[in-house]
Amino acid sequence: MFTASKIDKNVPVPLYYQLKKLIMNNISQGILKPGDMLPAELELTEILQLSRTTVRQAIIELVNEGHLYRVKGKGTFISQPKIEQEFVARIEPFRDQMLRKGYTSKTIILEKKILNASKDVAEALNIQEHDVVIKLKRLRFADDTPIVIVDTYLNGKYCHQIYDVYQKEHSLYDLLSTNRETKITHMKRAIEASVSGEYESKHLCIPKGFPLQIFNSIGLNHLGTPIEYSIAAYRGDRSKFIVNISM
Amino acid sequence: MFTASKIDKNVPVPLYYQLKKLIMNNISQGILKPGDMLPAELELTEILQLSRTTVRQAIIELVNEGHLYRVKGKGTFISQPKIEQEFVARIEPFRDQMLRKGYTSKTIILEKKILNASKDVAEALNIQEHDVVIKLKRLRFADDTPIVIVDTYLNGKYCHQIYDVYQKEHSLYDLLSTNRETKITHMKRAIEASVSGEYESKHLCIPKGFPLQIFNSIGLNHLGTPIEYSIAAYRGDRSKFIVNISM
Repeated sequence: MFTASKIDKNVPVPLYYQLKKLIMNNISQGILKPGDMLPAELELTEILQLSRTTVRQAIIELVNEGHLYRVKGKGTFISQPKIEQEFVARIEPFRDQMLRKGYTSKTIILEKKILNASKDVAEALNIQEHDVVIKLKRLRFADDTPIVIVDTYLNGKYCHQIYDVYQKEHSLYDLLSTNRETKITHMKRAIEASVSGEYESKHLCIPKGFPLQIFNSIGLNHLGTPIEYSIAAYRGDRSKFIVNISM
Repeated sequence: MFTASKIDKNVPVPLYYQLKKLIMNNISQGILKPGDMLPAELELTEILQLSRTTVRQAIIELVNEGHLYRVKGKGTFISQPKIEQEFVARIEPFRDQMLRKGYTSKTIILEKKILNASKDVAEALNIQEHDVVIKLKRLRFADDTPIVIVDTYLNGKYCHQIYDVYQKEHSLYDLLSTNRETKITHMKRAIEASVSGEYESKHLCIPKGFPLQIFNSIGLNHLGTPIEYSIAAYRGDRSKFIVNISM
């Protein structure tokens, strides 16, 4: 798996970068499996005839990217694989998406309240500032791992009944679909990469500065009226979004 | 713009988090413009009646996310806005995409070589390990800002002529389109968030640990044969990808 012949000191590619690729290839080919311990730094320096600095840099970057994680006093381990999701190009309840991938889903409602739209929420929902909106803040899990924090703002004019009805067991999209006026038929989504601050780190159980995949979405009904505005922050180490594009 | 009344000490939302939102809203509404200097930390603590720690945390997180940047001895400034791109759901040359957004594009070829496919490249292109592939490593700019590093592997069996022909002024997709066999008609794309290591930071002129948007794409011809495999790392602070989804 790790032999000195796998590292080429005669090419202009930095050694730490070659080692990163080597570890990643071992992971992608299933030679190193989730939960497996990586050989110790010292062992890698000896086997691969690399300096300790080189080995350390490769490992630190893979930890920062979420491919490896450290357990104090134990060692460095291979992270769980990313969950392949199709949210990018599809409107589907989180629960259904997780089920199809073989995970159970769980939702914790962190906030559920009626408030007056701030300027940016009003703009997204094409309503007036201070108009009534329903806010949901939810933490969603795949099996027992927190995967995403979602802030959802629902257009109060159309969705007032949701406030009383919605419980954590429900699919919000299914609830909205029971009424033609609130059924989401299309969506505008902006996809951005970010890093976690204290807030996201706390809820998603990740270190600060960890990769986050951000989706900013506006869901519209069949008349093009914005019904829902949401900001979702997915753990970058557990999320991969697949899309098929045709000309 | 910044007044103490904008921060609410009676709600259970952390103060640094409220300040982040306040700064972001000022940016999204154009009150703070790209290149503008943010009021000094001390000034913010006084105007907003917040502790220095709170103000500092908000600013540090916005710097880490790429919304603000520091200039030593000068202060903290508002970053350039993200470039809205439609690559997620569309196959379009980088140059055309940038032109539509009002940017000039530039490409630097960092590597152009013929090599034997590694195991992961072979798998992506559905060829044998050690089969011939053409590798291009390119750094691409919007105006004078490096936006993305792209590693492209072309199926050697179909694309051998590209090696001699391709120059940095060319659009690779346009070149591939001149031949029905190599014309990309559909694409499988995986979208992931990551953070920059030393390598990406150097080329993209960003600090280490900065957000990166990663696209892993396989481009196929009309028969479903993989022609191109690419890994693109976009600067997270300058890139936003827009997609429209219909049911």
